[in-house]
Amino acid sequence: MEAVNALIATRMASENAPRIPEVTAHLIGAGGKRVRPLMVLAAADLCDYAGDHDVRLAATVEFIHTATLLHDDVVDESEQRRGRPTANLLWDNPSSVLVGDYLFARSFQLMVETGSLRVLDILSNAAAVIAEGEVLQLSVARNLATDEETYLKVIRGKTAALFAAASEVGGVIAGTSEAKVDALRTYGDALGIAFQIADDLLDLTGDDIGKNTGDDLREGKLTLPVIRAVAGADSEERAFWDRVIARGRYQDGDLEQALDLMTRHDAIETTRKTALDWSARAKDALDLFPEGEMRDTLRALADHVVVRLL
Amino acid sequence: MEAVNALIATRMASENAPRIPEVTAHLIGAGGKRVRPLMVLAAADLCDYAGDHDVRLAATVEFIHTATLLHDDVVDESEQRRGRPTANLLWDNPSSVLVGDYLFARSFQLMVETGSLRVLDILSNAAAVIAEGEVLQLSVARNLATDEETYLKVIRGKTAALFAAASEVGGVIAGTSEAKVDALRTYGDALGIAFQIADDLLDLTGDDIGKNTGDDLREGKLTLPVIRAVAGADSEERAFWDRVIARGRYQDGDLEQALDLMTRHDAIETTRKTALDWSARAKDALDLFPEGEMRDTLRALADHVVVRLL
Repeated sequence: MEAVNALIATRMASENAPRIPEVTAHLIGAGGKRVRPLMVLAAADLCDYAGDHDVRLAATVEFIHTATLLHDDVVDESEQRRGRPTANLLWDNPSSVLVGDYLFARSFQLMVETGSLRVLDILSNAAAVIAEGEVLQLSVARNLATDEETYLKVIRGKTAALFAAASEVGGVIAGTSEAKVDALRTYGDALGIAFQIADDLLDLTGDDIGKNTGDDLREGKLTLPVIRAVAGADSEERAFWDRVIARGRYQDGDLEQALDLMTRHDAIETTRKTALDWSARAKDALDLFPEGEMRDTLRALADHVVVRLL
Repeated sequence: MEAVNALIATRMASENAPRIPEVTAHLIGAGGKRVRPLMVLAAADLCDYAGDHDVRLAATVEFIHTATLLHDDVVDESEQRRGRPTANLLWDNPSSVLVGDYLFARSFQLMVETGSLRVLDILSNAAAVIAEGEVLQLSVARNLATDEETYLKVIRGKTAALFAAASEVGGVIAGTSEAKVDALRTYGDALGIAFQIADDLLDLTGDDIGKNTGDDLREGKLTLPVIRAVAGADSEERAFWDRVIARGRYQDGDLEQALDLMTRHDAIETTRKTALDWSARAKDALDLFPEGEMRDTLRALADHVVVRLL
């Protein structure tokens, strides 16, 4: 991971445009959890990879992730990320958009250096699916008819696609069997889904990661606990969701009332269980691999993404 | 070019997020000039290429170009593009950012299909240089100390890099000699510089491409005629530029006064000559190739980008 951090620091530099490393350092320096790079390294190691392309690919997925964060903050008009003001607030929207584009391009340069067309195929597909998931989320925002299937499609795209690609390419560069590559992709996909459901739940119930509680509700996002509470709503409750989500007339006290309604319909508890189920599925996918330190690391990661729900 | 248009139509689709083709069609359907795809096709043909990867790469460069237009409109807060309202005005900034990201990812998928790591290297480098040029432009906006060297760096990045890559990859997929690949890159670079200088000049003097005249001045962009007029300014003129560009206090009548000052310092006429010089350099780079229809087409393109200056 030290080699990954060193490579990230080198490649985020830009001789011609000093603002690029400033903006990037603000975000990367804020100490993300580096879950995605760790997945690449651990997956490659689990498949006995001995080269150094895993470091390049670990930096690649962190760059793609950072680029999407920069663009998300513009899309969501967020003011806080990882407990600090967002780049679009400290600089401006144009800087966030363009530095995101730069990091995205840098990520492609890094993967080209691996010389593996299959890796390029996996990661360019992931990039397209991520953007599709984000656009889909935008299109269904404030739409109370959104169902669980659509929600899953959104989070598979915007979140799980990159986790799935990260663990998959770890196996691919190691030249492991197709069955193991499939297992790694399944692992990353399930972990990513668990991660996003947990994140959506914690946006409502509160946590310590430095985002504002209730942001998703104010933005009219249809997350799983909301979808489940809406599904069970009587006409009075329906009027509440219609005002808050569909018409966007959020008022003080609405977060508390939303939580009451969710609790009444058991939406918090069932959502929590759904996240834990996906985490368990991620761990099960690893059964194919021999016991050992790296398998334990990947299992621990699957526990880690839902630990705040326990 | 019909095959390119058909491929563009297929690949801009998205089953999961119908807003993507809507936004893309608004821009691509507005009838851009398709200069970049034409360069790929003509360069490949000039090098006797017989396969079909030229069509993929032509669609690739149009997708990259369209993605940068979508992001530029957010960055510049533009309201018109190609004589129609911009996507960020018709939909919203988030749609422009995310659909741009999608097209960028789709462009990488297309180039991966060519199976050429060298092509991937050239185009991922170009994507990084484009973003760098845009960020540099942002950092030097409203800075009256900007010199011609910096201006050239900005437009080489934001504009010429994609033209250079478009003609270069045409030669690369054809497996032509390094000398010819170099010549094609030089051609695209010079043509791109000529194109951008012409575009910057026409933003001031007016034209028919459906942008608002004087936009660059209002946004405090340091374009070549402004840089040259500032270089020759006396203290009174300097105060004018300081108010309009540096402090951004644009008033009615400022465009006319700016044009007067530029004319006084011969900045319009010398800028026009600089654009024509770069166009001539682009044509000269083709001397290496045998006479014929494709060389004529590429020469005609180099004339076309400055035709409105004649």
